Amino acid sequence: MSNLTAALIQQTYGPRREDNLEKVACALREARRAGAQLVALSELHGSLYFCQQEDPTWFDLAEPIPGPTTDFLSRQAKELGLVVVGSVFERRAAGLYHNTAVVLDTDGRLAGRYRKMHIPDDPGYYEKYYFTPGDLGFRPIETSLGFLGVLVCWDQWYPEAARLMALEGADVLIYPTAIGWDPRDEAAEKQRQLDAWIAIQRAHAIANGLPVLSVNRIGLETPAGPPGIQFWGHSMVVGCQGELLAQAGADNEETLIVTLNRARSESVRRAWPFLRDRRIDAYQGLLKRFADDPSVAGHSSA
Amino acid sequence: MSNLTAALIQQTYGPRREDNLEKVACALREARRAGAQLVALSELHGSLYFCQQEDPTWFDLAEPIPGPTTDFLSRQAKELGLVVVGSVFERRAAGLYHNTAVVLDTDGRLAGRYRKMHIPDDPGYYEKYYFTPGDLGFRPIETSLGFLGVLVCWDQWYPEAARLMALEGADVLIYPTAIGWDPRDEAAEKQRQLDAWIAIQRAHAIANGLPVLSVNRIGLETPAGPPGIQFWGHSMVVGCQGELLAQAGADNEETLIVTLNRARSESVRRAWPFLRDRRIDAYQGLLKRFADDPSVAGHSSA
Repeated sequence: MSNLTAALIQQTYGPRREDNLEKVACALREARRAGAQLVALSELHGSLYFCQQEDPTWFDLAEPIPGPTTDFLSRQAKELGLVVVGSVFERRAAGLYHNTAVVLDTDGRLAGRYRKMHIPDDPGYYEKYYFTPGDLGFRPIETSLGFLGVLVCWDQWYPEAARLMALEGADVLIYPTAIGWDPRDEAAEKQRQLDAWIAIQRAHAIANGLPVLSVNRIGLETPAGPPGIQFWGHSMVVGCQGELLAQAGADNEETLIVTLNRARSESVRRAWPFLRDRRIDAYQGLLKRFADDPSVAGHSSA
Repeated sequence: MSNLTAALIQQTYGPRREDNLEKVACALREARRAGAQLVALSELHGSLYFCQQEDPTWFDLAEPIPGPTTDFLSRQAKELGLVVVGSVFERRAAGLYHNTAVVLDTDGRLAGRYRKMHIPDDPGYYEKYYFTPGDLGFRPIETSLGFLGVLVCWDQWYPEAARLMALEGADVLIYPTAIGWDPRDEAAEKQRQLDAWIAIQRAHAIANGLPVLSVNRIGLETPAGPPGIQFWGHSMVVGCQGELLAQAGADNEETLIVTLNRARSESVRRAWPFLRDRRIDAYQGLLKRFADDPSVAGHSSA
């Protein structure tokens, strides 16, 4: 297989899982008709983004894996012959929940899961209340289309996560995402946030010579009342040099269909041999939280 | 000090060190008049970018530290009351050379040095022939203006280098650089390269909540004959959210003068608390070259 055709499904979601999965089903069929082999959905596509408040009743949305959502996605994947990357609020045990990406292969098999490793917590995104940090590490998921480096949302701000997936053999990085603006923020601040989100994901492609697929939702959601979050869309497909191959807007439901040339990663990595020159003998500090005494640590022999 | 005014000096350089340093001296005086406190020069500003070929006579350009270039920069720094970030082809011993950034403080003292850690080698940039990889690690250099996270050129493609400097307490990242186009490349390829170079450095600012200063040279240089390298300039100052505060063009000598608000790093890191959530318990793989058997490493329990 020299090419891979991927579809990114950017949608709004409402309060009822059945409705959301029905929307997903329609989009999957449409993507299949357009030639997609791999389809990526956005984060927590079965519900509103409920993490805008800390309320224990939202835990009722959680489900096991396998469970209703993976059963549904499995049937779709098998029927349509697609590899599907979905997202589940995973109930692992009483009091133990994860924000989990799942991958269904073309035979309907659950190829693997990734439990979100980096968990945010800031106003409007109270994820540390709901989600236990992942404990499966950064492992690409093997599918009939290759190794998928599936990460989730907040992970996208961490070069470490992208690098680890690349070093573990990922062929592509995929970020199901739910990110948006505080409607009260000024236009310039909103633009800086969006630009930063695009830049850092382009940088993951560049640093690792891999394509990056990032899928976000759209729509204003106010499950905890105003102001809510205006999800900013801008789902994107980035090539191995960081070039934007396709990008959606902020306002409309949209399916991006992009055909990736699998040979490009090899040729770009030959031209930009970053993996060759990593100073693994000098990276131990990456395993530390911080060098707590910079007045000592910063000492340089002159 | 709530503000820091930085100057980035983008110039052409010729074959004679004396001429190049005289150009630097003029630019330093001009930067001082414009209010600069910190001035950053580009990589190997004492010579042409000689690494376009492997020729042992170029080693004659190397000099000790302290030596002619640091003596010169020291006098300038003291006379003008500037912190100066310069670059030296360092002769450490016979057969042992480094690509070294140096920092002179306002009292003329050599505040510290950084020996380029990541060394490139690809057509036109035969640096592995000339430069031994640095052995001083990623340590910010303490100055009267704060801790400077000085890195050099190829380092700019490595998120690890930027992160390590941030974790060691850098207040700002500074990249003396010499990068350009192969004149034979097509316009679209040139644009992708330049765009990638900008994006990944913006990403270092974003991931670490720090300003980034990157200083490149301009001009077509053909010390090894045609086609040579067309240095692409585009020196830039990037804010803590990855926003471009100032950027030079590709064709002209230019000094960028930008005043940075030192409080911004603190406020941006509060809004984007990436350092808080790093999974240092799960980053051991960053110390490996590669997971050599992805069919095993990629296995995910489903």
